[in-house]
Amino acid sequence: MVHIDKEVFNAHLGGKIEVALKRKITSMEELAIVYTPGVAQVCMQIKEKPNTDHYLTIKRNTIAVITDGTAVLGLGDIGASAAMPVMEGKAMLFKQLAGVDAFPIALDAKNKTVDEIVECIRMIAPAFGGINLEDIASPECFEIEEKLQKILDIPIFHDDQHGTAVVTTAAFINALKVTGKKAEDLKIVLSGVGAAGIACTKMLISAGARNIIGCDRAGAIYDGRTANMNAVKEEFGRYTNPNKEKGTLNEVLQDADMFLGLSGPNLFGEDELKTMAKGPIIFAMSNPTPEVDPVLARRYASIVATGRSDYPNQINNVLCFPGFFRGLLDSYAFTVTESMKLEAAKAIAECVPENELCAEYIIPNAFNDRVAPAVAAAVMRAAREDKVCKEVRTGDYEFKKAVMGV
Amino acid sequence: MVHIDKEVFNAHLGGKIEVALKRKITSMEELAIVYTPGVAQVCMQIKEKPNTDHYLTIKRNTIAVITDGTAVLGLGDIGASAAMPVMEGKAMLFKQLAGVDAFPIALDAKNKTVDEIVECIRMIAPAFGGINLEDIASPECFEIEEKLQKILDIPIFHDDQHGTAVVTTAAFINALKVTGKKAEDLKIVLSGVGAAGIACTKMLISAGARNIIGCDRAGAIYDGRTANMNAVKEEFGRYTNPNKEKGTLNEVLQDADMFLGLSGPNLFGEDELKTMAKGPIIFAMSNPTPEVDPVLARRYASIVATGRSDYPNQINNVLCFPGFFRGLLDSYAFTVTESMKLEAAKAIAECVPENELCAEYIIPNAFNDRVAPAVAAAVMRAAREDKVCKEVRTGDYEFKKAVMGV
Repeated sequence: MVHIDKEVFNAHLGGKIEVALKRKITSMEELAIVYTPGVAQVCMQIKEKPNTDHYLTIKRNTIAVITDGTAVLGLGDIGASAAMPVMEGKAMLFKQLAGVDAFPIALDAKNKTVDEIVECIRMIAPAFGGINLEDIASPECFEIEEKLQKILDIPIFHDDQHGTAVVTTAAFINALKVTGKKAEDLKIVLSGVGAAGIACTKMLISAGARNIIGCDRAGAIYDGRTANMNAVKEEFGRYTNPNKEKGTLNEVLQDADMFLGLSGPNLFGEDELKTMAKGPIIFAMSNPTPEVDPVLARRYASIVATGRSDYPNQINNVLCFPGFFRGLLDSYAFTVTESMKLEAAKAIAECVPENELCAEYIIPNAFNDRVAPAVAAAVMRAAREDKVCKEVRTGDYEFKKAVMGV
Repeated sequence: MVHIDKEVFNAHLGGKIEVALKRKITSMEELAIVYTPGVAQVCMQIKEKPNTDHYLTIKRNTIAVITDGTAVLGLGDIGASAAMPVMEGKAMLFKQLAGVDAFPIALDAKNKTVDEIVECIRMIAPAFGGINLEDIASPECFEIEEKLQKILDIPIFHDDQHGTAVVTTAAFINALKVTGKKAEDLKIVLSGVGAAGIACTKMLISAGARNIIGCDRAGAIYDGRTANMNAVKEEFGRYTNPNKEKGTLNEVLQDADMFLGLSGPNLFGEDELKTMAKGPIIFAMSNPTPEVDPVLARRYASIVATGRSDYPNQINNVLCFPGFFRGLLDSYAFTVTESMKLEAAKAIAECVPENELCAEYIIPNAFNDRVAPAVAAAVMRAAREDKVCKEVRTGDYEFKKAVMGV
């Protein structure tokens, strides 16, 4: 039997979220308004003008947090039911930090193809104003996200990719500020070319990086490598590692200005730190054990960030996803754009006041309550600029007049 | 544009339900309990012992209210999105009347086969302790319910069939008490052989009825009829209408002791009422306009019930479904049984105190707060007697000791 701490057990007993009524039904008259026969008017309105479901149902504020349980935390493919506690925790954070109603959907998708998973999600989508994909194994996650976004007119966001990338980029922006380094000058070595690694690479390139070298178990990926490749890595090789550096992680770390770890514990130590460029930036995000000891790394690095809350500079997705979906829902965005992500990263970075910004404080705390509103505002601005907002007339006076003749 | 009353519009703006945290996260320590890293212990426990998800996730108290939007209220096939307001209203009633967390799922299942719908529901099932099917067209609803119950180990309940049948049977039980009639002596004519009509017929037979004659547009159904038949009606013909009466609805109404209407408005009037047996029982449940004028009918009938709240004796599903699922969840039932439904009907009937029982009061009010607990208790009793309870060790001391070593 698996050991569960008493506090953890008690916090999970009966689940962590519930469904609540926005207002109680106190009379037969009220029942006739929220249920039959009154509800029929609303049903018919939605049938006549489909987009009205965005404000006449929960869709305006509700998203699905969907997993198939294939890549849960660091636990791997533990299945749909076992993934539920993580999804519920995520739903808590969505609500508490940004007022977003998130409902967990765990798909029992064993032996299902990507297309079958996509089709199931498409079928259940009408209730939701957005979809947060979560803990889905690579490379299926890329295809699921892309195919869903093609067939649905609500935003699809795979948090393990884009949430991680946004927060990493926020930390990157502030790390550059603190160190005075320039993105385009850096040799950046990435360990872990999975969903998060690829998304981070793309965003760092958007933020100005030019030389990122991704490493997997077979070492540095370069255009033309043949061992241990797949379609995703082949594409990755084409837009990274412009100097086609070859060798193991430890070898390419030589002279690197930055290390970005999204892989596993204890990959290197003091010897490798010594071979890196002077005062490198180290983001060692493997959890719970980072790729390199953060205390040791700090002796050599100008900045160290991890995924842990007990060291300075925790790179935590929770800084992104609640506010990001708040912005998506409030702008009635029908998709996610690159500039939304970059603006969100900048907004997170700016939540660290300039006079407080330093090597030990490049990223705001997970509970900093200025972050979610700032991210939401950034996403809304970008949505409008990118022209990806649905035309949805909300419950304003003009609309009421038209519908109700008031 | 469809007219919406001001009160109805305002009650629906932004939806009627929300997701709430059971407790707020107030510190990084609490975050580490409900989310990473603490949550991983719970995930692993569920992976090791799958049934523990019944109390370590929301599953213990959460059901899905699922529709495909093909038979919504009396509005017909209006689609998934347009059905959402009804599903949300239902979710409100589940929570308010029985504390059940119900989440609405509207399936965009246009051009999908029964098997494809079943497979989609199977895939999303892990989060849920039960499934309430709603407003799905006949005959697909029968097959969907039956196939789902075969492959899932949580109870499946199609409210339009069984909820209606349970409440109708409750009213029937009390109508017999008031009139002193006996179920086995009655000639009962049913109008509308859809999902609700068939389910009611089966339950009335369980409650003792022997002679039920179902009518569709082609008149009385009998074993061997060839016009306007399908597999469902053929089966129906075999266990009903033992005297093989033929003719139109109005013709078979002659000498009938009871009329059960689950079809459409204004089917007959005074002439037909006169031809029925003396002091018949009339359940005219078409909404908003009953099959026969209830005031007129009461001049001839000993008892009249309708689906409306503004006449005496409203036969309203809300008397059944909240308490029924409360009982299913609390007993960890893996299926729905016939005796659960009959016991639930008896429990509802008994909520009318014997000294108050009369022709104008055979069924409790929708907001009678004794009903849901009584129904839940009846379902739990039946579940135990029928031995359909999962062995789920809940969070009791013994379990805690085993898991946590306390």
